[in-house]
Amino acid sequence: MVTKELLNPNLLRAEYAVRGPILQRAQHLEEQGKKIIYCNIGNPQALSQAPLSYVRQMLSLLEYPELLEHPQSLKLYPKDIVERALLVLKHHPHGMGAYTQSSGIPFIRRAVAEFIAKRDGIPANKDHIILTDGASKGVQAAILALLKNRNDGFLIPIPQYPLYSATISLYGGTQIGYFLDEENHWQLNEGILIESITKAIQEGIHPVAIAVINPGNPTGAVLTLENIRMIIGFAKRHGLAIMADEVYQENVYATGCKFHSFAKVMHELDERDVTLFSFHSVSKGFLGECGHRGGYMELRNIRDDVLAQLVKQQSINLCSNVAGQIATYMMVAPPQPGDESFETYAKEREQILRSLKTKAEILGREINKIEGMSVDVPQGAMYAFVKFELPSDAGMDTSSMNAGERRAYETKRETEYCMSLLEETGICVVPGSGFGQPAGTLHFRTTFLPPQDEIEDLVRKLKKFHERYTKAESIVS
Amino acid sequence: MVTKELLNPNLLRAEYAVRGPILQRAQHLEEQGKKIIYCNIGNPQALSQAPLSYVRQMLSLLEYPELLEHPQSLKLYPKDIVERALLVLKHHPHGMGAYTQSSGIPFIRRAVAEFIAKRDGIPANKDHIILTDGASKGVQAAILALLKNRNDGFLIPIPQYPLYSATISLYGGTQIGYFLDEENHWQLNEGILIESITKAIQEGIHPVAIAVINPGNPTGAVLTLENIRMIIGFAKRHGLAIMADEVYQENVYATGCKFHSFAKVMHELDERDVTLFSFHSVSKGFLGECGHRGGYMELRNIRDDVLAQLVKQQSINLCSNVAGQIATYMMVAPPQPGDESFETYAKEREQILRSLKTKAEILGREINKIEGMSVDVPQGAMYAFVKFELPSDAGMDTSSMNAGERRAYETKRETEYCMSLLEETGICVVPGSGFGQPAGTLHFRTTFLPPQDEIEDLVRKLKKFHERYTKAESIVS
Repeated sequence: MVTKELLNPNLLRAEYAVRGPILQRAQHLEEQGKKIIYCNIGNPQALSQAPLSYVRQMLSLLEYPELLEHPQSLKLYPKDIVERALLVLKHHPHGMGAYTQSSGIPFIRRAVAEFIAKRDGIPANKDHIILTDGASKGVQAAILALLKNRNDGFLIPIPQYPLYSATISLYGGTQIGYFLDEENHWQLNEGILIESITKAIQEGIHPVAIAVINPGNPTGAVLTLENIRMIIGFAKRHGLAIMADEVYQENVYATGCKFHSFAKVMHELDERDVTLFSFHSVSKGFLGECGHRGGYMELRNIRDDVLAQLVKQQSINLCSNVAGQIATYMMVAPPQPGDESFETYAKEREQILRSLKTKAEILGREINKIEGMSVDVPQGAMYAFVKFELPSDAGMDTSSMNAGERRAYETKRETEYCMSLLEETGICVVPGSGFGQPAGTLHFRTTFLPPQDEIEDLVRKLKKFHERYTKAESIVS
Repeated sequence: MVTKELLNPNLLRAEYAVRGPILQRAQHLEEQGKKIIYCNIGNPQALSQAPLSYVRQMLSLLEYPELLEHPQSLKLYPKDIVERALLVLKHHPHGMGAYTQSSGIPFIRRAVAEFIAKRDGIPANKDHIILTDGASKGVQAAILALLKNRNDGFLIPIPQYPLYSATISLYGGTQIGYFLDEENHWQLNEGILIESITKAIQEGIHPVAIAVINPGNPTGAVLTLENIRMIIGFAKRHGLAIMADEVYQENVYATGCKFHSFAKVMHELDERDVTLFSFHSVSKGFLGECGHRGGYMELRNIRDDVLAQLVKQQSINLCSNVAGQIATYMMVAPPQPGDESFETYAKEREQILRSLKTKAEILGREINKIEGMSVDVPQGAMYAFVKFELPSDAGMDTSSMNAGERRAYETKRETEYCMSLLEETGICVVPGSGFGQPAGTLHFRTTFLPPQDEIEDLVRKLKKFHERYTKAESIVS
């Protein structure tokens, strides 16, 4: 029989914190009847966010094209969506049930290229677009393709989204963590990047790529134009490919902040040497269609023979799911003014984005009022990375610990804190250690996705819990 | 910039023949206006097979639940499907747009377990079911999980479906090919298995699993009960896990042939030691829903700590796509007698399966009439693996070649033949070398999925082409 010892050691090593033991405990408590507020993962439609009508209308017509032949049923659909459905079936007569080309349906890849061209005012090529089952699958494909051996290193942010660390572990590569600058709105810091890569090289690691998440997960930070320019220069000097995770590009709330794509900034810099993989998804933004697993990867400064290998890699998986490809199409080609569906689309979109902005502000403001807790009010994305303090343990001398021991001790404290929070309040958040953290700090990540009244309630409960917990800890001490 | 030399050498090595250069040439010719008959891949809905109504009705309702509130639109749906849609939304209120549990929606995993229990008359456990994006993703997950290092070997059939060889290459493992017995309806042969594993062990390879495709791809063979018992005994003696690819379990046509699942045979043998991964999919059978990328993996004789690792592995991908999960649900829980949708379901199902059986027989019979061409009439699946002969090259002395040289020469001849067939007739098939073949034989794989009149036309064209090609080759000689 297969035993744990017989499994791939890379799999045993891989950790994926946002779906770890705390979530399992939460699911268990929920089965027992406890109300759980799932703030552990960016899953908007599991937290009452409604899907955008135009996306679902299109999918329902394409799943069951018989609807197109019945005038009564068509009354339920805006005219432009019906026309678009007919157009899709004309371009792609095989419909939802056939394998597509390995990179995805050609007219959808063309629509993605047009979306990028329009968003950034730059040229884009449909043959450099690969449709993927969510952005995760694109990230995983890029990491596997760039990984020649165990010593190949990927620079990843700390704190990071654990997809990166888990995938690098699973495929047997090496992570090179670089700290984000909490004191400077979680931007990247060139000094820290240089320090991280230099240390890695000294240890015999060969850096191949840098992953950047913008807007940030778990930090909620939006990178400035200058910061992105700096990163491109850094990548160029060190011969690194850039993996730009831009799935939160629509989720920018803070006044004065603006999303700048790596593609656009590279074009402006006339940068023709740094290979760019950028990723987008239907799961975030205002669509929140996580369950449909749709997304794309765009390639820049890519040679034809390298592209051919990446397409071959996709062919082994046959193709990404067609419903996800259609959702991606609807994301990049939404209704336009004058279309019957436009008004509803614009209203639904606006409502979701405004609500996210309001909730980010409430969460940020109220958490900063809690004593011993602070957070950089999220500029974007769907998360806040909250710093908190606990009274020191009486029996514990952290000054005699080395950094590793200290982090292990703090991981334990973070985990106990989050588990207690769950047990007492039903709030499910992820300990900061799951995202990587410097020694000497305690964090947790929470989303601000629950409905507004629940967010207000959540912050109240959190405050009460934190006061009680720190008091109890003090008494134990 | 990333160059080909900087890519993962395992990716460079991986080959996926069913989507190789011949397909690319076919797509190119099609763009230029040539009619192509795609027999290279089992993609039924790209070859005019209609989807089953009940699957698509359910998906359209779940994509756009507003339909459930309008009596007019509901007239287009059978009553039981409407009730099932409401039930699904009750069990799974988040609908299609939220991430699910990593292993898939619990009530669907329960339905899969009930399907297996009913099919085989054996117990089945929903917690040992993992829903996947098609069977391919399950196979890939199993291979990655079982692969400890480069010398770990997977026994795979020759001829095989190239997913296996490509995935083993991509993840850096070793394939141990075992020939199927063409003289004995492509069954597995114990002597050959022992010879293959013995040779591999002598070469320092550590065998970890055996992959079996039943019904066979590309062979169309259905394994007998005795053959499956033999394989289980062989796996047990050698400490191998079994990977049973059973995606064609509904595609059995030949009189006297019957599908026996590995799960059932292992249960009958009271086998409690051999770990079994078995795979099923919505892409084949009578559904043919390839584009929806739905499927499942069932585990038997699996320890809890190993299962936990496999679930963690899924969690890194978040979850499989929800439309595919729903399609899987519909596959395992089809309409029952008495349901309003039953009659249509039964008729559509019957039509597809009868048509496949008829086409398998026509293809087999007519190919066997062509001089210098022969085929084992497919007992199941969607493919025929056709053996053909070419006149020997005058300038070529194959007797002085070693087996490797001879295979390379034959690969070239097969490829030239298939490319000429495509150029002249528009028929796109895959050279046998893509599936692995012993030296001294020439093969190609074709599906029998095109509509019946096209199959008849295809065989006529193939006959004419083969006669002309072999004559021309003789003249050159």
